[in-house]
Amino acid sequence: MIYHYKPIEEALKSLLQHVKLELGFAEVELDNAVGMVLAEDVYAPIDLPLFDRSAVDGYAICSGAVSSASPNNPIPLKIQFGDALNSCDEAIPVVTGQKMPIGADAVVMIEDVIRDSNTIYVTRPLSKYANVSRRGEDIKAGEKIASKGEIIKPVHVAIFSALGITRIRVFEKISIGVIATGSEVVEPTYGIRAYEEGFILDSTSILIRAALSEYRFINTKWYGIIKDDEKQIKEAVLKALNENQILVITGGTGPSDHDKTFNAVINIDKNPIIIARGLAMKPGRPTSIVVIENKPVFLLSGFPVAAYIALNVVVLNFLFKALGISDEMFVEVPALVTKKVSGSIGYDTFVRARIFRCGDELCTEPVLLHGSGVLKSLLISNALFAVPRNVEGFDRGDKIWVKIL
Amino acid sequence: MIYHYKPIEEALKSLLQHVKLELGFAEVELDNAVGMVLAEDVYAPIDLPLFDRSAVDGYAICSGAVSSASPNNPIPLKIQFGDALNSCDEAIPVVTGQKMPIGADAVVMIEDVIRDSNTIYVTRPLSKYANVSRRGEDIKAGEKIASKGEIIKPVHVAIFSALGITRIRVFEKISIGVIATGSEVVEPTYGIRAYEEGFILDSTSILIRAALSEYRFINTKWYGIIKDDEKQIKEAVLKALNENQILVITGGTGPSDHDKTFNAVINIDKNPIIIARGLAMKPGRPTSIVVIENKPVFLLSGFPVAAYIALNVVVLNFLFKALGISDEMFVEVPALVTKKVSGSIGYDTFVRARIFRCGDELCTEPVLLHGSGVLKSLLISNALFAVPRNVEGFDRGDKIWVKIL
Repeated sequence: MIYHYKPIEEALKSLLQHVKLELGFAEVELDNAVGMVLAEDVYAPIDLPLFDRSAVDGYAICSGAVSSASPNNPIPLKIQFGDALNSCDEAIPVVTGQKMPIGADAVVMIEDVIRDSNTIYVTRPLSKYANVSRRGEDIKAGEKIASKGEIIKPVHVAIFSALGITRIRVFEKISIGVIATGSEVVEPTYGIRAYEEGFILDSTSILIRAALSEYRFINTKWYGIIKDDEKQIKEAVLKALNENQILVITGGTGPSDHDKTFNAVINIDKNPIIIARGLAMKPGRPTSIVVIENKPVFLLSGFPVAAYIALNVVVLNFLFKALGISDEMFVEVPALVTKKVSGSIGYDTFVRARIFRCGDELCTEPVLLHGSGVLKSLLISNALFAVPRNVEGFDRGDKIWVKIL
Repeated sequence: MIYHYKPIEEALKSLLQHVKLELGFAEVELDNAVGMVLAEDVYAPIDLPLFDRSAVDGYAICSGAVSSASPNNPIPLKIQFGDALNSCDEAIPVVTGQKMPIGADAVVMIEDVIRDSNTIYVTRPLSKYANVSRRGEDIKAGEKIASKGEIIKPVHVAIFSALGITRIRVFEKISIGVIATGSEVVEPTYGIRAYEEGFILDSTSILIRAALSEYRFINTKWYGIIKDDEKQIKEAVLKALNENQILVITGGTGPSDHDKTFNAVINIDKNPIIIARGLAMKPGRPTSIVVIENKPVFLLSGFPVAAYIALNVVVLNFLFKALGISDEMFVEVPALVTKKVSGSIGYDTFVRARIFRCGDELCTEPVLLHGSGVLKSLLISNALFAVPRNVEGFDRGDKIWVKIL
């Protein structure tokens, strides 16, 4: 089948129309929540704080009683105990977080008073509600504190805890099967003699699996390296499709006769939906997407860098959109280009780059190592940018938006 | 004991002098390597590629034979098989990654030739080494590919794989014990009635534990919430010190009588080394550091935000330095301040902020919610910056460096 390099957005749009990812739900305890994707909006059941409370250790007082206080005019207040001031001549010791005694509207810090047996002396005025946390000032009852599709972060867990929410509903982990293909590819444990014998040690599928392992809401299942044999590939794909919701296959997507993967995949189903045979991206042109049994199968290049870029801008991009994940996949920052870089009209060109401080700006230097198999370019780069397919390139000094890896 | 607010760098410097973190080593397989800290420099054992190889599927040829090729002057080459060209009139089919046949110095892509039974026609010239990956062009034998102290990323794992390195030496996980103190603090499972009954649901220690759980090279062990009782705190601290290399305690560091934690900790040892009783930071002034039995004990505020900031700028900062971790803890980006923000002379003031695009710059808006207990400020902020202790503040329009959370 002939390539037709489809723009990435177009392919993703079509894929999202053809596939509905249906994930189950799981109730998890907060200890296991970080990194999972919230499956429902979460609202505060109560005000936080639930009442006016002291924000410090000190003495609860009437602010009006000390309005004229100064070092030359220390105001004496009698120490009382209990949950209410009888009059504004009194002060009640409070600790941080304690409910404000009735009648008190400010707290003077323990460090800021002089104490003399049963009396404290206040030497400066306090504004109303000084050192008081007001009811609901942090969070109001009914307020939405997290949304469906958010990746749960430590601060969410802290807020849920403070609100007494100890179990939350998240999406079950999504399972992604990974298959490598290629008769020439062998496991790294084979050792470097592989190269002398005409083989290549697998690094592409390992890069893909390692990158996926950074997401706690993804379960990756590995199906090994399959030879360039249509029957064997079909079997592996069927098994993996059966056990996963998404399939990623590396290698065997090229145009030559020994690239059996694409045909093996489309021949599994009577009605395969071919979303894209080739994408308008460089590197990664052979990237293809097929839907089999309502599940997306991504065919990535056998080259590690091309596969890695396609994993991010195609596979994970799809996953984030399909699950409604609101978090940005990449932090984007503005940076000055230090070296002219050419794109390729008709193709989104992804350029690995290094960003670094230059004066009070960030600069980005394209890592111009040719060859999509060049792993070192990933090692020395810490950012990625795209030259869009309708742009010829960027000149030295152009300010562009760069994604931090 | 009286506070003496020590600058953070000074405290860290002193702590690093007093404590030698001694971590064991572990050999791990690549599947378990991502996120661990490399314990040795890694050098390439071989050139990569190990020999000149084809970067595409096509035909290996002599570039000199097609220098005059054009659509009007197609150069015919006879298809041969084997690992050497007999003459420059021949072409040998090669697949991606295949060793270059002897005598060939370029590869014409399969898509770029016209084939006619035993002959291909080349219609444009190729430069020497076109579509050839040269020996060592990716990585040279002996080249350092990763350094001790690097946090292992997916791309490292891919390169190790390609080089046949399947087990690597990493630091054993560092164990950090976490204790919460405070008679008023209860587990979130207690439910929101806690507040009516004068208790507070723990969120601080949960935030600390969740934040630590994001680092795969850290093992966190939780010791529960201990009452404000010197004996009970001592017991918990002793147990936790025994079982961990670092201890983090939240709460009970304030100046009042019921804040027993600091005394409990320093009374454990005959010769406690008090690195800092208070730090020159806001929020987080009560943050204290003590060395007991050669192990650092960090006493953080009971307020979640203050504790969270101290965790990052003190505890993790120490850990990164002590382990020689070369990765940046935060990505720092330049951003324009949208609103005047005041610091506090003598204290490094940490300001939670939101960064967002504004034109072709990033802007940063300080999240000015008062109170270090205000969790929502963390929820709506995605960045953090410091107003250094010798700076009064920043004005609207100032360009500053902001750490991305």
